[in-house]
Amino acid sequence: MTASQTTFRTTVTQWFKGLQDRICRALEDTDGKATFVEDEWERPGGGGGRTRIIAGGNILEKGGVGFSAVYGKTPGKILSALQLGEADFYATGVSIVMHPQNPMVPVIHMNVRYFEMSSGVSWFGGGIDLTPHYVDETDARYFHSRMKETCDQHHPSFYPRFKKWADDYFFIRHRQETRGIGGIFFDRLSADDTFSLEDRFRFVQDVGESFAPVYTHFMRKNHALPFGEIEKEWQMVRRGRYVEFNLVYDKGTKFGLDTDGRTESILMSMPPQAQWHYNYFIQPGSREDYTLQLLKKGIDWV
Amino acid sequence: MTASQTTFRTTVTQWFKGLQDRICRALEDTDGKATFVEDEWERPGGGGGRTRIIAGGNILEKGGVGFSAVYGKTPGKILSALQLGEADFYATGVSIVMHPQNPMVPVIHMNVRYFEMSSGVSWFGGGIDLTPHYVDETDARYFHSRMKETCDQHHPSFYPRFKKWADDYFFIRHRQETRGIGGIFFDRLSADDTFSLEDRFRFVQDVGESFAPVYTHFMRKNHALPFGEIEKEWQMVRRGRYVEFNLVYDKGTKFGLDTDGRTESILMSMPPQAQWHYNYFIQPGSREDYTLQLLKKGIDWV
Repeated sequence: MTASQTTFRTTVTQWFKGLQDRICRALEDTDGKATFVEDEWERPGGGGGRTRIIAGGNILEKGGVGFSAVYGKTPGKILSALQLGEADFYATGVSIVMHPQNPMVPVIHMNVRYFEMSSGVSWFGGGIDLTPHYVDETDARYFHSRMKETCDQHHPSFYPRFKKWADDYFFIRHRQETRGIGGIFFDRLSADDTFSLEDRFRFVQDVGESFAPVYTHFMRKNHALPFGEIEKEWQMVRRGRYVEFNLVYDKGTKFGLDTDGRTESILMSMPPQAQWHYNYFIQPGSREDYTLQLLKKGIDWV
Repeated sequence: MTASQTTFRTTVTQWFKGLQDRICRALEDTDGKATFVEDEWERPGGGGGRTRIIAGGNILEKGGVGFSAVYGKTPGKILSALQLGEADFYATGVSIVMHPQNPMVPVIHMNVRYFEMSSGVSWFGGGIDLTPHYVDETDARYFHSRMKETCDQHHPSFYPRFKKWADDYFFIRHRQETRGIGGIFFDRLSADDTFSLEDRFRFVQDVGESFAPVYTHFMRKNHALPFGEIEKEWQMVRRGRYVEFNLVYDKGTKFGLDTDGRTESILMSMPPQAQWHYNYFIQPGSREDYTLQLLKKGIDWV
């Protein structure tokens, strides 16, 4: 570990902490009622985090903005998944999931993370994806345009590549549905011939900073839209699918649970409630049907 | 495939079908309101099933009794899990999960199954386990005594062995809790020096027939017990744990989803609703706390 590596790691960690603060403030300001409650925790093997939970807001029914910086001996399951030999690791990041009250406001998820191994390899990962209960084409185009703008500032290949990655990642195979309308997803962005680790960091910073303006836009725009029992029930069904994705497929959740991560922080992504109906009937031509038609890979929103 | 093998397979299959009928009738009679709705389905690779769903009953809020008999080329994931070479398979069984309205009535799960490979190996598996939202010691003793009686008719080693197997299997590792109070669980019961395949079948028949009297006993005994909002919320939290177990750990669910099983039939085990609260507060000394203390492995209920 050289001094400059330690400095970089510290810089990234402090920046993530600040990002958590800024996002929490923006969400509280826009919600206008609920405030985050913070839980500081320590990881027995090294490091810890601060999990911040919001609940019962005007707009946000339940959500979490988590920061963590953990280190120690790399769990065996991660080593074998990454095909690496024994090593220490350092991982820091910010994770967010927001479940709104109003079904017309989309669920959002963001994660930005930095990972470093004592063997010398290090990378960034993350992304933002949107899960509308009801797909609105204007909103979908707006969201993907913002993501594309952020990506384009760094490289024209980023948006198409990371958009496809999100389509493939946020896929509920047993339902043959995407979780939502995707967004961007990327992992293991190391330094290479084109990008230094500092370049990667600047990209991740821009992704992180894009979260609050994008989501508060949807909060403001959609929180007062009318809805009734049908929409509320459909929201519960979609939340059920969110649970299915997170518990069956999400790699972060699986690794977290497998490696004795802090369960409450890992599962802060769970919705406040969800429902399961057998063979849920969707009226052909309804808004629910329209949404289902758009939960597909490969839709070009921009 | 000899004629006697074909006969045995047919006998088992027909018996499972009849078991599904008998159990559905007993549950409908005891519920007194809801009736099962049947969905017949075919498996593209071979075979099919009939999934029967009950919902909105006096006592049963949502539940399913599924029968299936499927065959074909063994999916690669099963072959590698069982460390077997390429072969055809035949699998038939009955699966049940019942989620009651009243939190004082326990959730119950049963599975009995028969599996046969063209390579010659064949076995029975299954079990019954109980997931009370509130553990009642008398009920727990009653349930385990019934399971022990059924087992003891076949071999004194069965109950202790299969009870421990259930404790180990129905364990939510990331919560360090058992799903409920366990019961019996067994798998790969093939013919051996002590038991013929016909002996195994007779045991599985007794397990299957024990389901209706045991569960209708709890339905009748507990469905009118008083409960309030606290108990209803706790039920939703426990249902969340049920979802976590089924989607993260349950081998049947995982294999089913992995091998393109029929999603709606696999996930008929999901509760009608569930809730997730961050760091759910449990009043020390409350009935919820008492229940949690008993969601442990190794409790001797008989």
